[in-house]
Amino acid sequence: MILEQLEVNGSLLTFGTDCFGEALQATPPDGYSSVFVISQQNIWDLHGASLAQALQKVSCPVSMRMLPDGEGIKNLGTFGELLSWLADKGADRKSLIIVLGGGVVGDLSGFVAASYMRGMPWIYIPTTLLAQQDASIGGKVAVNLPQGKNLVGQFWDPRAVIIDSMVLGTLPQRQVNAGYMEFLKHGILKSEDLYQRILQVPDQPDWSQEMALLAMGLKVKVDIVKEDPFEKNIRRLLNLGHTFGHALESYTGYKQFLHGEAVGLGLVFAGLLSTRLGGAYDWSDMIGVVKSRVPAFQVGGWDRKTILDLTLLDKKGVKGIVSWIIPYKPGKVEIVNGVERHILEDTFEEFMKQMR
Amino acid sequence: MILEQLEVNGSLLTFGTDCFGEALQATPPDGYSSVFVISQQNIWDLHGASLAQALQKVSCPVSMRMLPDGEGIKNLGTFGELLSWLADKGADRKSLIIVLGGGVVGDLSGFVAASYMRGMPWIYIPTTLLAQQDASIGGKVAVNLPQGKNLVGQFWDPRAVIIDSMVLGTLPQRQVNAGYMEFLKHGILKSEDLYQRILQVPDQPDWSQEMALLAMGLKVKVDIVKEDPFEKNIRRLLNLGHTFGHALESYTGYKQFLHGEAVGLGLVFAGLLSTRLGGAYDWSDMIGVVKSRVPAFQVGGWDRKTILDLTLLDKKGVKGIVSWIIPYKPGKVEIVNGVERHILEDTFEEFMKQMR
Repeated sequence: MILEQLEVNGSLLTFGTDCFGEALQATPPDGYSSVFVISQQNIWDLHGASLAQALQKVSCPVSMRMLPDGEGIKNLGTFGELLSWLADKGADRKSLIIVLGGGVVGDLSGFVAASYMRGMPWIYIPTTLLAQQDASIGGKVAVNLPQGKNLVGQFWDPRAVIIDSMVLGTLPQRQVNAGYMEFLKHGILKSEDLYQRILQVPDQPDWSQEMALLAMGLKVKVDIVKEDPFEKNIRRLLNLGHTFGHALESYTGYKQFLHGEAVGLGLVFAGLLSTRLGGAYDWSDMIGVVKSRVPAFQVGGWDRKTILDLTLLDKKGVKGIVSWIIPYKPGKVEIVNGVERHILEDTFEEFMKQMR
Repeated sequence: MILEQLEVNGSLLTFGTDCFGEALQATPPDGYSSVFVISQQNIWDLHGASLAQALQKVSCPVSMRMLPDGEGIKNLGTFGELLSWLADKGADRKSLIIVLGGGVVGDLSGFVAASYMRGMPWIYIPTTLLAQQDASIGGKVAVNLPQGKNLVGQFWDPRAVIIDSMVLGTLPQRQVNAGYMEFLKHGILKSEDLYQRILQVPDQPDWSQEMALLAMGLKVKVDIVKEDPFEKNIRRLLNLGHTFGHALESYTGYKQFLHGEAVGLGLVFAGLLSTRLGGAYDWSDMIGVVKSRVPAFQVGGWDRKTILDLTLLDKKGVKGIVSWIIPYKPGKVEIVNGVERHILEDTFEEFMKQMR
């Protein structure tokens, strides 16, 4: 059932429950010369049947490619393999790619769609809460280099995005908790009201009942991306929690935390930093929720200098000056270019104390 | 000395002679965090000193990368190496790439600029007549796959393009003749007058004296690309001579002809095809010029069926229907979707007879 549809920068965004077929009808793959489905085997085992059924009526040739599981596929090697696959199968500019998967598959396959014959249309069905709240909107597609995440990519909006609550029902609890952090971030960016409503979402919700709230969260990103599609100014607000989060991911070799978990910890850091910079808002409810949903970890032994140095490598930095996104209170978030090192050091100590 | 400057889709286009330094001053690389120069060793040996001198005043760090000579570098492997080099050197979104080279280096490095951190600025100094007339304008950047040329790429306009007649003085005669074919194509697209003037250009001209005519040729492409930047409709006219040309390149394994030579032969084929389709224009002057500037080749033994089948693989085709660009006379060129096979076969026989 479709709950709502809206258009963002040329993408048709559909919110619903068990609605693959209905949503695809709004942008029927039938007008294309051929269809290429990209997914991962573990995701296909859960939701492939629904997509296959939705595609049964398509009269043009449909090809499928199941990528190996895991995050390791998001690199230039797999990028090249997918492009060769398209060329071997005779894909042309009127072919369509349909991507069923989380952010890793979406980012990688979207970059393939952006690059094959200088750009072909694609439809994205994100299968994690994180991807629904984050990767689904804004057209950012990319692969990683050994030197850093998302260093190679493009802006390439899908023709349609299908946000279906059905896929969330099979998500592991840890994935739900991690995705929740981007959802929570949207609440902080928007307003006290949305922030409080998202704080109240239990960690094992009935997602079909929360669809309206999920849509409200995503619309925060939609509104920002509409105003600044190429991240020239206010889109940088979406980086809230990410500067410290990325540094933690890098410090722990991308092994200890899921991206959403690192963002959650980054939200705590950003909240504490806002207090150091004079903000009066009490972030203890948010800190409590993050603590309860990020797996217990040992903060002992973390090297403050190395972690803070890693924040300097932020991709959005220029000439070594980092833009910090500071939440003074829900609905009042600002970009601060450069924060003095001793303030970051004090905030780090406070963070370690709070998270102990 | 700068002859003329104009803006095209955000690119500043400079025509001149021995004007690297002057032209760079119009978009000074000094406002960037770092500069990355990409070239090939044989080109750098000829023109590197002029560029190095122009860059002497730049205060930010300048790094250089000399790619191996030849066309074999235009692939995903070199693409990945250049991206890794940028990451290792700490390139950020305010870094600048300057490319000195022919179309191969320009296409490859432009795609790197388009993709690193989702897009960074670049300046292109084309060093062949072909690249000046073709690759310099329109933002098409790409690499090849084993399955076909330019199958992976983007549209990414350089910030500035420097068309300097000085670089043409050192071009081998065969390169001049090949590049001339794209120049001639622009004359056919534009008008009887420009076509006739370009027909009169000798094969060993003093390029500094022909700069105004070169600019007129390039402006034909400029006007088309301005109107249709993403090749939705009239930009396809620039494909004149390319459908048959690409098939010949592919048939001969990209070894027998330079791209411009194949385009020249494609112009002959297109002219003969226009006659078969009812056009009354006499293309014999053009055919004579192409014959005199493309190296003698044996047409005996060419397989008509294979070559005509290869035209069906044209990247701009959809569902196997090929768009032929038909010059009814200079200044009157049209897109014809699908031409009957027996007409193509007759035209092929006529082509073989004319080129004998």
